[in-house]
Amino acid sequence: MNNIPTTPPSGFRDFTPADCVLRAEAIETISRVYRSFGFSQIATSAVEDLAVLLGKGGGENEKLIFKILKRGDKLEEAKAGGELADMGLRFDLTLPLARYYSKYGSTLPHPFKAFNIGPVWRAERAQKGRYREFYQCDADIVGADSWTAEVDVISAILSAFKELGVNGVEVVLNDRSFVYDALAAAAVPDDKRIAACVIIDKQDKMPREKMLAELEDLIGKESTEKLSQTLLTTTPNRDSAVGKEQFARLDAISAATGGKARIDPSLMRGFDYYTSTVFEFRHPKFSGSIGGGGRYDKLTEKFGGQPVPACGGSIGFERLLLILQEEGLAAAKFGKRICVTVFDETLRARTLALAARLRGLGIAGLLVDVYPGAGKLKAQFKYADTTGADFALVMGPDEAAANKVNRKILKTGEEAAMTFEQLEKSLS
Amino acid sequence: MNNIPTTPPSGFRDFTPADCVLRAEAIETISRVYRSFGFSQIATSAVEDLAVLLGKGGGENEKLIFKILKRGDKLEEAKAGGELADMGLRFDLTLPLARYYSKYGSTLPHPFKAFNIGPVWRAERAQKGRYREFYQCDADIVGADSWTAEVDVISAILSAFKELGVNGVEVVLNDRSFVYDALAAAAVPDDKRIAACVIIDKQDKMPREKMLAELEDLIGKESTEKLSQTLLTTTPNRDSAVGKEQFARLDAISAATGGKARIDPSLMRGFDYYTSTVFEFRHPKFSGSIGGGGRYDKLTEKFGGQPVPACGGSIGFERLLLILQEEGLAAAKFGKRICVTVFDETLRARTLALAARLRGLGIAGLLVDVYPGAGKLKAQFKYADTTGADFALVMGPDEAAANKVNRKILKTGEEAAMTFEQLEKSLS
Repeated sequence: MNNIPTTPPSGFRDFTPADCVLRAEAIETISRVYRSFGFSQIATSAVEDLAVLLGKGGGENEKLIFKILKRGDKLEEAKAGGELADMGLRFDLTLPLARYYSKYGSTLPHPFKAFNIGPVWRAERAQKGRYREFYQCDADIVGADSWTAEVDVISAILSAFKELGVNGVEVVLNDRSFVYDALAAAAVPDDKRIAACVIIDKQDKMPREKMLAELEDLIGKESTEKLSQTLLTTTPNRDSAVGKEQFARLDAISAATGGKARIDPSLMRGFDYYTSTVFEFRHPKFSGSIGGGGRYDKLTEKFGGQPVPACGGSIGFERLLLILQEEGLAAAKFGKRICVTVFDETLRARTLALAARLRGLGIAGLLVDVYPGAGKLKAQFKYADTTGADFALVMGPDEAAANKVNRKILKTGEEAAMTFEQLEKSLS
Repeated sequence: MNNIPTTPPSGFRDFTPADCVLRAEAIETISRVYRSFGFSQIATSAVEDLAVLLGKGGGENEKLIFKILKRGDKLEEAKAGGELADMGLRFDLTLPLARYYSKYGSTLPHPFKAFNIGPVWRAERAQKGRYREFYQCDADIVGADSWTAEVDVISAILSAFKELGVNGVEVVLNDRSFVYDALAAAAVPDDKRIAACVIIDKQDKMPREKMLAELEDLIGKESTEKLSQTLLTTTPNRDSAVGKEQFARLDAISAATGGKARIDPSLMRGFDYYTSTVFEFRHPKFSGSIGGGGRYDKLTEKFGGQPVPACGGSIGFERLLLILQEEGLAAAKFGKRICVTVFDETLRARTLALAARLRGLGIAGLLVDVYPGAGKLKAQFKYADTTGADFALVMGPDEAAANKVNRKILKTGEEAAMTFEQLEKSLS
């Protein structure tokens, strides 16, 4: 009959009431923990100018962006040959934070500790567990160059996982500048740095010999041998000239966040804005990460300001939700739920007055629902069951004449006629 | 140096920590009230297929939509001549609800009481107080044709305003079918109905004589005279043949929601999906509405299903926030805030351990911040002040040697050295 879809576009989702309860509870817990660590909540617009999202070069990020079509005359002009879009949906919360700080920095506390929880959008192919609209929960410290910032961000995220009942979270740490120093010490030329990193990044996924052979093809035998003593060791030498400073810092961060972080010299993280420390949170249930972050000391330069040291981390909210759902963590209970049924049309107004009076009691957590339709009591009891009501109230002509109400306990079927005062007493 | 903007696009906004606290608190209150009335929270995707947003005809709504550019090969194909966009940002929460119900209806309670709180986007010209990204807070009942639905939706919204401390809210009620019946009884032909409504809708804004003259030009003298006895009366005749049924229903709704609703026969509300009851919430501070809604009994037809009776309402969240800000309603207090300062690099690890121990106490509402940078104590005390800390803690070499900490009350400047146990006692 028609082609209007009832499903959201591929990679987008609807959420049921049960989903919403769990999501709202998780967001509330994460917000509370972040706040207890001294982070203040900010929010930025979902839509950004394309210039903000693309930066100077555009590059890798461009493919991630859902672009918004120009409108009106500007669209007509663009159709004749020009950029068709002027804005786009944000693909992370870090870039908007750098913009926010560049605009409001002078009025903010220094350093500025901010958290931001909200949806981001990425035009990637949708896969199982990978969506095109998903939430991020970021905590960032802008304007701080000490490693206290790393400790504070990692501790806040670990504490949020703990408060949510997610156990067994592992922290993996590295310092990108160690990778770059090791490449420089092995005399790898600048124009081969990125290609070398791509090979090194695969060391978990291919035999060591194969990786070393690939490297040798790229940067020669001598450089590869040097790298295999610094960067490509499984237990890095903390006292060698290369990396000594970085390892001391990573060890201090590890100790201050509980002493259980694993230092992995090959960890790089995806985004190109990280400058030194990078970290990831892993969970036995997933091969990938359930959160991560790092230090990005140059991101504000993009907006024409001075480089400002900054460090931030993010919880992978959708993966967190999968863990919470699988481990069956209890969703919030909202107290008792009453369904007020409507006996017939002549008693509708009186029944509504009964519901209003119950709501007016102000009993914390009490949910008062009124059957919103017209129909047989049987259908109304079914509705009460489906919605999880504890009690159904019926006021028929007899009860109305006696100024009483019939209370049915849905679990047991037990019924009793009572006055409003008796009902009130039974609820509190 | 560069042209990357630090301001969000026109009509979009960033929110400060103070904004976020107020917004989060308002959303939490509205959610709690809606839930206490038996509504369950749902959420839908921000992005919808254009077919969902445009429906069969497109029409007025098309101009409201931020469209998302196609990507990859599909974009190249479209450039050769075709629709450039495939999806768009939702412009309200009612259409997504109708889609949601069409998809999941058979698994939902019947009737289904849902609430949805989230951002919507409209490609309108930005003005003072009118944004292109703003929140809506909708409560809807799908599958109920009795006027209990209207009472429940209106009562829940009034109750939310009350819980937020917003007083003086007026409810204005009408029934669109009364307008249509009056036009039919006055023999206004179908093809002139919309033009007549446009003139009638202006009756608040122009002299009565002028409006009647315009109507006479359109529909003739006889029809205009009939309308001035039914639709265009200031105190409508509740017992006349036209509107008798509608007025009885509106009177019952008014009585059951507190008895103070004003019935205004000219109220129409903008969206064309309303079929009978329409209502608006007004506040002395604004000439427009701070919320509204109505009955839309045919919206699910769009998705190929049977027409399902439905009624819903929405709070104009951004206007509500203006009232909350102007009336200076207090934002939530988050308990005591401590700023742990870092005396110098040698004491950083011990200071971080002190902060971790304080956080480990699990004192509800306690915020423990650590100065995240490195610098002089003077800058750190300034940071503590700016962030609204109650206490600053200093652990210098003397305190560290004595296993103590110096606690400064920032309001009074009073300082005292104390053990951790003494500090803990002073906090709880």
